[in-house]
Amino acid sequence: MSFCHGLRLLYSQLPLFSRELNRPWCRYVSSSLALSSEKRASDFNSFVPRTNTCGELRSAHVGQEVTLCGWIQYQRQGLFLVLRDFQGLTQIIIPQDEAHSHVKKVLYDAPVESVVRVTGTVTSRPPGQKNPRMPTGDIEVKVKTAEVLNSCKKLPFEIKDFIKKSESLRMQYRYLDLRSFQMQLNLRLRSQMIMKMREYLCYLHGFVDVETPTLFKRTPGGAKEFVVPSREPGKFYCLPQSPQQFKQLLMIGGLDRYFQVARCYRDEGSKPDRQPEFTQIIDVSDVFRNVEIGFVQNAVNKPQGTVKAICIPQGARHLQNKDFEALKESAKSQFNQEVLHLILKPDESLKSPLRKFLSEEQQSELIKALKVQADDVVLLAAGEHEKVCLVLGNMRLESANLLELRGLVLRDPTAFHFLWVVDFPLFLHKEENPAELESAHHPFTAPHPSDTSLLYSEPAKVRSQHYDLVLNGSEIGGGSIRIHNAEQQRFVLETVLKEDPELLSHLLEALKSGAPPHGGIALGLDRLICLVAGAPSIRDVIAFPKSFKGRDLMSNAPDYITPEELEPYHIQVAWPAAEAEANKN
Amino acid sequence: MSFCHGLRLLYSQLPLFSRELNRPWCRYVSSSLALSSEKRASDFNSFVPRTNTCGELRSAHVGQEVTLCGWIQYQRQGLFLVLRDFQGLTQIIIPQDEAHSHVKKVLYDAPVESVVRVTGTVTSRPPGQKNPRMPTGDIEVKVKTAEVLNSCKKLPFEIKDFIKKSESLRMQYRYLDLRSFQMQLNLRLRSQMIMKMREYLCYLHGFVDVETPTLFKRTPGGAKEFVVPSREPGKFYCLPQSPQQFKQLLMIGGLDRYFQVARCYRDEGSKPDRQPEFTQIIDVSDVFRNVEIGFVQNAVNKPQGTVKAICIPQGARHLQNKDFEALKESAKSQFNQEVLHLILKPDESLKSPLRKFLSEEQQSELIKALKVQADDVVLLAAGEHEKVCLVLGNMRLESANLLELRGLVLRDPTAFHFLWVVDFPLFLHKEENPAELESAHHPFTAPHPSDTSLLYSEPAKVRSQHYDLVLNGSEIGGGSIRIHNAEQQRFVLETVLKEDPELLSHLLEALKSGAPPHGGIALGLDRLICLVAGAPSIRDVIAFPKSFKGRDLMSNAPDYITPEELEPYHIQVAWPAAEAEANKN
Repeated sequence: MSFCHGLRLLYSQLPLFSRELNRPWCRYVSSSLALSSEKRASDFNSFVPRTNTCGELRSAHVGQEVTLCGWIQYQRQGLFLVLRDFQGLTQIIIPQDEAHSHVKKVLYDAPVESVVRVTGTVTSRPPGQKNPRMPTGDIEVKVKTAEVLNSCKKLPFEIKDFIKKSESLRMQYRYLDLRSFQMQLNLRLRSQMIMKMREYLCYLHGFVDVETPTLFKRTPGGAKEFVVPSREPGKFYCLPQSPQQFKQLLMIGGLDRYFQVARCYRDEGSKPDRQPEFTQIIDVSDVFRNVEIGFVQNAVNKPQGTVKAICIPQGARHLQNKDFEALKESAKSQFNQEVLHLILKPDESLKSPLRKFLSEEQQSELIKALKVQADDVVLLAAGEHEKVCLVLGNMRLESANLLELRGLVLRDPTAFHFLWVVDFPLFLHKEENPAELESAHHPFTAPHPSDTSLLYSEPAKVRSQHYDLVLNGSEIGGGSIRIHNAEQQRFVLETVLKEDPELLSHLLEALKSGAPPHGGIALGLDRLICLVAGAPSIRDVIAFPKSFKGRDLMSNAPDYITPEELEPYHIQVAWPAAEAEANKN
Repeated sequence: MSFCHGLRLLYSQLPLFSRELNRPWCRYVSSSLALSSEKRASDFNSFVPRTNTCGELRSAHVGQEVTLCGWIQYQRQGLFLVLRDFQGLTQIIIPQDEAHSHVKKVLYDAPVESVVRVTGTVTSRPPGQKNPRMPTGDIEVKVKTAEVLNSCKKLPFEIKDFIKKSESLRMQYRYLDLRSFQMQLNLRLRSQMIMKMREYLCYLHGFVDVETPTLFKRTPGGAKEFVVPSREPGKFYCLPQSPQQFKQLLMIGGLDRYFQVARCYRDEGSKPDRQPEFTQIIDVSDVFRNVEIGFVQNAVNKPQGTVKAICIPQGARHLQNKDFEALKESAKSQFNQEVLHLILKPDESLKSPLRKFLSEEQQSELIKALKVQADDVVLLAAGEHEKVCLVLGNMRLESANLLELRGLVLRDPTAFHFLWVVDFPLFLHKEENPAELESAHHPFTAPHPSDTSLLYSEPAKVRSQHYDLVLNGSEIGGGSIRIHNAEQQRFVLETVLKEDPELLSHLLEALKSGAPPHGGIALGLDRLICLVAGAPSIRDVIAFPKSFKGRDLMSNAPDYITPEELEPYHIQVAWPAAEAEANKN
């Protein structure tokens, strides 16, 4: 089950869509990152009785009387304590004189993580006690008055970044987990990134933020949509998987540039990334067409068969035989696929179990085709096209992991590499019945302009105007130019996909009513922000995530409700036989 | 059934909440309006093949070659047409020479509301043909090439602002209705207002935008929440009425300043505005304590009884006897309440059916208490406190309507008058059992600091820290300072409200874990934007509104779905007896 938050936008009047369009996005995302770390003049102390945050005081403040509010990070023997808020830590000196004995008692008795307000004077730390690793490490605050605003019980874990917590404990006590430095940073980064995107869209390019309904009608084929019973017997809303139809209707309604930070509801398990690695795989089928190796021959002689290879430059300097064995073993166990390796030795000869099957001429042809140099390693696989690409893509990542374990720096974790994937097929053969076609993405995607005539003769060959955006190997978004011609849309639905066009009659009618050419893109914000924040899981960039099975571990949702509570919705639970039986007994 | 979009924000560490807090908000809303009409340097022509919008060209552009895209507003005899987009209208001159006969044919044949792209040269309109009422009225575009991007069928209504359409036709063809000038303006104003609010919160005051889940657990007493069946038999999510609990958990989690433009789901009819008019009603019970009028005596001798009056300054100059009769009739028919009127004549004597019941002394006492002057009219009602306030509030609005019909200007539609309503009671006596108490707003509202001790002795007398914000007489928002002390929260739930605190055990536990003092406010964006835009209904500021009964008239949601589609959710429809019977026959 997945719950994704997506930025969705659609712009119209794009008949001459060009790939140039991509670039501003890439530039934008990079520049927004630069901006998000920029200091802004936000007043964190407006509306509240504190004068400063706990991350704010410096030597320049010495002598000022300040009021701070925060959580007690720790307290030592009634002498001092460290106060924490979302901005940082400040050291507080507890007065020891008789006149302030009440203040001392209050702070001494307050448990760790209690919320306190203190007022006092900023002073320089004594010589030798400054802490250069702490932004407020030059000063401390000598307290005059203190009040415990709320006391804290003993917590299930300490709020310290170095304390390791299990994932389920973190989820159960999410409100405590959110106090960690990393979660505070991630959620604030998320807010800033989305605000930057809004500024870019609204202020630089005149987009309009429009909210579309989340209680809608079930769409044809929307098997993964949550249903919501209404008070009319037998009638249901659904929570739409995406604002797909509303976006198009806004374009037809003349809201020329629309965007929305939309929530999408999908009642399904997480889809594995279907994006095989296409880059840097070189097709060497021709070289092997006459090579007498059984499985290679089998591969190249099948219609979808191919022999492909990837090159690990200078791999022989860092990888050993056991590494090649591990890679082959992995390909075998994960994909049931044979992988062979070749090394080009400094004397330009090949070292490989394959060598004996190749003539001198074939060997030099291969070296030429692969553009290998001395000490390069080649990994080679033969088989069905899609599988070979998938396996070699995987080998590429595993090789990189191995090389990085050997100390090589191949991938800069702070660099952002964007890739557009284009020229997807518009239709795919159905797995269960290859004679029939289904949409590769959705039935509203427009055919590639060069392939429009093929739509009516050989639809399986038509490329689509769908595009996916990949960041550092992860798909972060996708979109398409849509069909704006009602007749073309009806042809796709009725003739190609064999669906009942009446189910989408309101869309077809709208397309006839002066629909401008239009297209759009949706970015998966959770994944994008996850990559930018360097977070290990999207759960680290969502305030209250659901578990893999869609459960809320904190409140225990979803939960049972009584038959009486279901009455207004005219539904009752249809218990599966086993459980109904168990209930009876 | 209501679907509201609300801006919700919560800020923590507000132990010394002050009403000063109100003012920045009021200032802000006004200044954002000023800004929204300000010209910004948005580039509406980025990413698209047009060079200009249809509202952009002026004399300064004469001689330039431009490309425009838009809808054909009208076309006359193949001589010229007017092109429309979201920015305005531009007049297009169709070439008449043989060399451009193709262009002429294309534009002549294109039906109204077709989408076209034209390229041509900006020229000055001939002398005498400039249109000063049209921003682009100094110029026209002489077309060289034209292309119909999408043709338009005959529409159910013309896209012209002066064409009147029924509400149901507007809803059924919402995508056409959205093309109207007013809907374009409203939705763009909404987008700009929300963006300004975001800027104010994020950039000026360091708030963090956090998305909270919309699939949650049913809350106690959440009878109006939509339920969403899950794939676990018998288990349901709900769509929360508000992110109430998550907001508090974010405060406890140290996300000190949070806001969200949140969607709230309420499965109920529109609540009538429960906000009686409190202003300018003067209590005159003391004057009438000894007056021998039966219903007045009845009123003042009851515990909640009162006599109250409002004054219509100079009312006698504009209102006649039939107006007073109409007002009284309205009070009688709407509220079953007697209303009396008094007029102070220029000779300072009272004219009223009441006069004969009042001594000279009582008359002058009344004149003094009401501070009436010559020609002022007083409307007076006696009865139960709440009802009398409600009726007189209503009379006040009806009198204002009558006076405005007579040509007086009482209310400036462009002025924004804000009002805070405070000191609400924390609990109300239950209607069905007045011995028991229920929360006036919700059980998480904190008691007024001055009344905290009363909570444990006379809870019915405790004022709350709830506040409502009213703009020009309409409630646009409300919020409260919340209880942050777990023991106080438990006392309210268990002892005052007699609810099972175990249902909220996760909140009570969270409050014990170092919850800072906190409070917040939620603004009803639909209503606020409606007031600012001067729109007659909130349906005019929502792109795709539901009907009063929660129906989507365009797609016909909610709709029937098949038993097979319900299977994965382990529910079946429980048809009401009558319909089950009808299905059988």
